[in-house]
Amino acid sequence: MYKIKVYVTLKQGVLDPQGKAVEKALHTMDYDQVQDVRVGKYMELIMEKSENVGSKVEEMCQRLLANPVIEDYRYEMEEVVGQ
Amino acid sequence: MYKIKVYVTLKQGVLDPQGKAVEKALHTMDYDQVQDVRVGKYMELIMEKSENVGSKVEEMCQRLLANPVIEDYRYEMEEVVGQ
Repeated sequence: MYKIKVYVTLKQGVLDPQGKAVEKALHTMDYDQVQDVRVGKYMELIMEKSENVGSKVEEMCQRLLANPVIEDYRYEMEEVVGQ
Repeated sequence: MYKIKVYVTLKQGVLDPQGKAVEKALHTMDYDQVQDVRVGKYMELIMEKSENVGSKVEEMCQRLLANPVIEDYRYEMEEVVGQ
């Protein structure tokens, strides 16, 4: 089995209203040291072992997990003993 | 400056409808190797340097960034040259 950790973030320059909202809330709570907040998605997938897992993950990111127009993605793969 | 990477995930045992929806969509797209999907939040914060950054981040996670009742959080801190 594989555990795949996928990180999806907005591309630089893309407005992040969610991040702005969190930043504003933190300032309201007196965390003035916070200069910028970017919010993205973090996903953990459990997948059966097969040769082409890497290319499958790449495909899934491009087709569903991330929006290639406005988002960047990166992933990490680790083998896990039967989950 | 510090870049703080915060990972917020649902606690084990907490139902993850978003994860189930993504899993179902991936199966519809013939990615049958996918056994489980958990969806969480990934945040990047830029913070000014100060002694108690660690405790501030802990506080922000507990008070706003994560819901301690149903979510777990972890974070990584790295020093960055003026952003």
